[in-house]
Order: sequence, then C-alpha cells, then structure tokens
Amino acid sequence: MTGLIVQKFGGTSVADATKIQRAARRAIRTKQSGSQVVMVVSAMGKTTDELIALAKDVSPKPPRREMDMLLTTGEQVSIALMAMAIDAAGHEAISFTGGQVGLLTDASHSKARIKQIDADRIRKHLDAGKIVIVAGFQGITETGAITTLGRGGSDTTAVALAAVLKADACEIYTDVDGVYTTDPRIVPEARKIDQIAYDEMLELAALGAGVMHSRAIEFGWKYSVPIHVRSSLTDTPGTMIMPETKGMEDVVVRGAALKRDLASVVLVGVPNEPGMAARIFARIAQHNIVVDDIIQNIYEDRQQANIGFTVAETDLDEARVVADQLVKELGLRGVETDDRVVKVSVVGIGMRTHTGVASRVFGSLAEAGVNIHNISTSEIMVSCVVSESDGERALQAVHAAFELDKAPNNDT
Amino acid sequence: MTGLIVQKFGGTSVADATKIQRAARRAIRTKQSGSQVVMVVSAMGKTTDELIALAKDVSPKPPRREMDMLLTTGEQVSIALMAMAIDAAGHEAISFTGGQVGLLTDASHSKARIKQIDADRIRKHLDAGKIVIVAGFQGITETGAITTLGRGGSDTTAVALAAVLKADACEIYTDVDGVYTTDPRIVPEARKIDQIAYDEMLELAALGAGVMHSRAIEFGWKYSVPIHVRSSLTDTPGTMIMPETKGMEDVVVRGAALKRDLASVVLVGVPNEPGMAARIFARIAQHNIVVDDIIQNIYEDRQQANIGFTVAETDLDEARVVADQLVKELGLRGVETDDRVVKVSVVGIGMRTHTGVASRVFGSLAEAGVNIHNISTSEIMVSCVVSESDGERALQAVHAAFELDKAPNNDT
Repeated sequence: MTGLIVQKFGGTSVADATKIQRAARRAIRTKQSGSQVVMVVSAMGKTTDELIALAKDVSPKPPRREMDMLLTTGEQVSIALMAMAIDAAGHEAISFTGGQVGLLTDASHSKARIKQIDADRIRKHLDAGKIVIVAGFQGITETGAITTLGRGGSDTTAVALAAVLKADACEIYTDVDGVYTTDPRIVPEARKIDQIAYDEMLELAALGAGVMHSRAIEFGWKYSVPIHVRSSLTDTPGTMIMPETKGMEDVVVRGAALKRDLASVVLVGVPNEPGMAARIFARIAQHNIVVDDIIQNIYEDRQQANIGFTVAETDLDEARVVADQLVKELGLRGVETDDRVVKVSVVGIGMRTHTGVASRVFGSLAEAGVNIHNISTSEIMVSCVVSESDGERALQAVHAAFELDKAPNNDT
Repeated sequence: MTGLIVQKFGGTSVADATKIQRAARRAIRTKQSGSQVVMVVSAMGKTTDELIALAKDVSPKPPRREMDMLLTTGEQVSIALMAMAIDAAGHEAISFTGGQVGLLTDASHSKARIKQIDADRIRKHLDAGKIVIVAGFQGITETGAITTLGRGGSDTTAVALAAVLKADACEIYTDVDGVYTTDPRIVPEARKIDQIAYDEMLELAALGAGVMHSRAIEFGWKYSVPIHVRSSLTDTPGTMIMPETKGMEDVVVRGAALKRDLASVVLVGVPNEPGMAARIFARIAQHNIVVDDIIQNIYEDRQQANIGFTVAETDLDEARVVADQLVKELGLRGVETDDRVVKVSVVGIGMRTHTGVASRVFGSLAEAGVNIHNISTSEIMVSCVVSESDGERALQAVHAAFELDKAPNNDT
C-alpha cells in the first residue's frame, strides 16, 4: 500500500531559491521512499509584509475582500516556483491555488473557515505520479471569491488536506526543530518534546507558545492526523503532535509557556448582586474586547466584590473606557489597571491523574520571590498572572520545578 | 441610456501607488460623467521582469503552465490595489481575476487564445453601481488551469471585454499620448494621428510600430470596437483606432515605420523549376522560422533564380543551417546572408485610390542615397529592406516625402 505524506513549508523555508530547491529535494526524497507527496507552501519570507505595505500605500483601510485578493498572490508565487524547482530536478509536479483544489470556505474574508475540500483533483494527479503542490492560507467561496484563512492558515490548509486525503502524517517544516518544553530564548535548558497530545499542544498554543496555530491543531485533533513539527534544515525527527497514548499521562507537565503583552483591569467595589458579572462582561463583549482570565474576590462583609480580568495590552485603552462607563452606571468605587502583566502557565495531561501540581507552581514562584496576581486552572493547566518584570524568572522557576530540562522517564 | 467604457492601464500607468491612485481617479471621473466603467489592469511596472528572474533562479527552463501560474500574480496584485484605491476615494469597486470573469481560453500556456467570456458577472456588478476591475493578460481553461495571453495580452483582454460588453469605446492608457506618424525618437517632426483605420494600425503594428499588439487590434476590427490610445497623464485626446470612414482615404499615407533586427538570406542559383520555392519554405517552416518577406529574381537565361527572404535576426543562425542543408540537397550555388538589414514602410488606406505611392517611396530613398535591397507591397503598404546603417535616414526621407509632419487636409 502506498503511503501519503502532506508536507507544509512555511515562509522561512521557502524564502529564496536555495531554500525552495531544498524543500523540493525533500519532497522528492519522500516520494522516492515510496510515499505520495502533497506539499503545502506559504508565501516567501517577507512577501506578505511587502504586500501589506503596498496596500497601505493606496488605502488606509483596504476592504478585506481586496486584501485577500492581494495577499493570496504570495502563495501563488511560491507554488509556481516550487513546481518549477521540482521539474528542474527531473520530477513531475503540478501546482494548484486554493480555489483550484476546491478548498471551499465561508465568505469571512481574512479569517475564512474551511467548509469542504474536493480531494479528487489532487488524488488524480497523485495517482499519475506527480507531487501535488497546494497554495496554503487560501480558499474560495461558493461564488468564486478568493478568501484567506487568517493567521497560521497554511498550517490549517496542510492539516485539513491531510485529513481529507487520509494522509499518514502531516509534516510541518519550520525553522525550529520541534516544540520545546518552553521558549529556549528565555530558558536555555528547554528541551525538545518528542510527543505531545493535541489538547496539550492546544493549551500551550493558547497560552503563548508560538509554534502552531490553534485551528490547525484542532483540525488535527478532530480527524486524528499525526502532525510532525520539524526542521526544514535537518533530518532529525521533531515533535509529534498526536492522539493521547497511555504512557503520556506519566509526565505531569509537558511544557510551560509565557504569554506577554497582557493588561489587567480591576473593578473595585462591585455590589455583590446576582447578574452583576453578566452585565459587566456583556458590555465588554459588545466592544469586541477578548477577556483572557477573570477573577472575583468577595469582601469580608460580603456586600461588595472586586472583579478583575486580563485583556491583551492593545485592548487596554478601550477596556478602560468601558470600565469607566461601568463605574458611573453601576456606582462602583473605581477602576485599577496594570498594563505590565504576563501569564506563566504549565500544561500537561498528567495533571488529570497527579495531584499537587498547583501547589508546586505556587511554591516555586514563592521561592523565586514572584508575587502572584491571579490564578486560573483547567484540568490540564495551571496559569498565574504576574508582573511583567517577574515573567521570565517565573517561567524559569516553574520549568525547573517540574524538571522539564530532563527527559521524561517513560519512553512511549 | 447609460454608456460603457473599458479603460486599460498598462504597467507604466500603475507602476506605483501614486499612479494607481491617478488611474483610479480617472475611472471615477468617467463614472461620474455617466458611464459604467470596466478597468483592465496590467502588472505594476517591472513586476513581470522580477517574477521571470525568480523563475530563472529555480529553473533554467520553467514549464509554461507554472510560468503562467507565476506571472498572473502580477495582475492580481494590481487589480486588488486598484480596487483599494477606488474604495479609499469613496467609490465602489470590485476586482476579478481572468478566471473569475470566465475569460475562457485554449490550453496554450504563455500564448493562449480567448475562446469565450462570460459577461454576466461583470454586468451584474456594473448594474449595482460598481467599477469593475479585471486582471489583464490572463484567462482560464475549461479544466481550470490559469493561462496567459502572451505579449500585449492586457490590450487583448480590454478589447475583448469591450466587444463582449458592447462598450462604447475601449480606452488604452499608456505613457505616450497616441499613435504617431512614426517614431518621434527617430523623426522629431512625427505628428500624433487623430484617427486611424484598423487595417492601417494592424499593418503599422506588424511593420514595427510598437504601440499596440496585433491581436488586440484584430479583435477591435472584428467587433468594430473603437480603440482610443491615449496618455494616462493628460486629458488630451489621443488616437482613435476605428472603422474606416469616407474621408480617411483622402490621406494617402497614414504613417511610416522602421522594423529593426532583421536579417536577409539569399539562396543563389536555385533551379527555376515548379515546386522549388514550396520545398524551400516548407523546410524553413518546419524549423519554426518566421519568414518576413520573400523575393525571387529570375536570371536572364530563365534557368536559375535567386530566392531571398528576411527573418528576425535572432533566427538567422538557424536559418543559415537550414539554408546550408538546402544548398547541398538541391545543388544550389550558395547562400548569402546579411545580419544588418531593416525594413522601412509606409502605410495608408489612401493607396487604394491614389497611384504613384511606390515610386514616390523609391524616389525619396534614391534622393537620400539609400540603396534598396528588397521591395514588398500590399494594397495599403509599401516596404523596402535597406541596410541597417541607412534605416533612420530612410525613415526620415519617406516621412518627409509624404509630408507626414503636416496635419492632413481633411477633418474627418
């Protein structure tokens, strides 16, 4: 039986002719080893930034439909060059835009969602012995308009194609050699993770680990596509994002993350009445402000509470305006804001079966002299909001506390 | 009744943000004056050259299908930016690729021919009050592959759209202010032509006048689309390429042209037998060498002839090889070649009704001391092949002989 591998090459992996040729050789090697190969390619290096700059030159606020029309040319250039490179190396390849492979999306320009993929055209060319190259990040609506999938869209294209084609794996080639226990620029002892479960990866992505975008991981999870994040420069295995295996829970914490650029807002003296929190957060949602964490402290006399929440730092100005309105309308005592907070988190499915994780986090932060502003937890995650100035020290402390620099005992 | 104008902007007219905004303003003005407007846009400035350079970096001989995939991104960038510029100026616009407007072509990548255009989509958006922007130069095959129309393709797109939409005119905006009686860089007295018939323009284009590509003019002729060649920088009327009117024949010669980079080949001592010329030119055609003019001189004894022809200078090496084979096979006396010849021509539908044009050409060349190698004529054209070193002088001489620097007497 012939296998099928989807290989996705990001912008840095196709940034120039040499890198395109290297990616082409990798696809050819995979094909020669007996697999059918579908490549998904992003725009070259800084192309997207350059196109955005062109748009800003003609319009302060370009319509999103036309922005999609503009940006999708980046991937179209890449797929054509990739097909040429494979042809020049003596192998058969054919390139397709998102529209040409029937990657149907809704009409939400700049952040469209995939509705359907017509795999027949790709299969036909794979069966004819060709390497099929598909433009990442883009799709087409039912009426033929060109759309883009938003940030990390090429990853989503690759994983979605792997799902539809029932591929054996989706390989994500990038400029790092896998997913790390945390950011090695902050914690030099960080170690490459060999295997990680989808939900762990999703939590880490949401908490600031930048390797892959959430939607692609969700797709992989939903359709059980093994996602192999690896370096385009070496043949070393990277990190496999995959369905949970038995041994995985033996590791209590898989990784730690630092989410920066947060701000906290605290509404002081909120009457402790039913429906008060609902009113407050409904108003905030109306302003399209995404709230990260919420914490409520009830005073001793139980008459009043403080309600705090964190938002992206870029949303703080608007959040402050909304909060001031709420103070007036609801007769609150006031608002306190802090634009210099970050969130430190540890993630691992082992938490489901191991106790004492939260206290180990708090203990390690206390030892490092880090004051905790906010705490939030889920079944597989513990997060602490701390001052920005404490952030890196806090990350180092939790990374050491869970011995993430050491290889896990289990060899699953 | 609402009129409809197709406006085509070439690469120099959309080379940067300022020029795109200028083109956008022109389309908006036209719309405000009461016409519906379809814009056809080329790739910005040097974009196509840059894309070709990218291709050469990855492949010495890129497949033509992938070359089309690559090059069509140039126009896609332009249409998106144009739509953004019109939007930023407060008017409604929508951009379409060739494929999106159903510009169906055959599958001859890099030189596809238009088979059909689906005008409904364009009409729908025009009727909704929008300026419709279509990518020039590109189409799509029945199976969805992206094609390009070859040199001058955006002009062809514009004229074809004007034909299908039954537009009142197709305006071709360029960096010159119209079609001139000849190249003003060689003959400073050259004058802008106000009106020119399709067949005159076709002859001039074939004879070296570079303003528009033949296929676009043929399309205009076939469907009687008035084509207005004019400057993107001014509001001055340019040149109208249009159906013949009565007064047009009063002008004996409309323009003169110099075709450079030709080479001549003369087969010496060809037996004067039936079928000999057919054998020779069949062989040359097999090698895809395009023959420009043919001249045959029969010797006094009527036993032998010299057969001469001109080819593009770039084809000379191959033509020489073929000629040498013919000399051996047919027992000819030899081959003479000259890689430094040019062709000077005068064109005008007035020749049909006026005599003595050829002799006036020969006379003016004789006066200027120019030796004529070859002569060819049609109903509306007289051409002379001369030495390259005589070319510009010859052009000046015929331009003066027919007083092309003076406005024609008729005011049609």
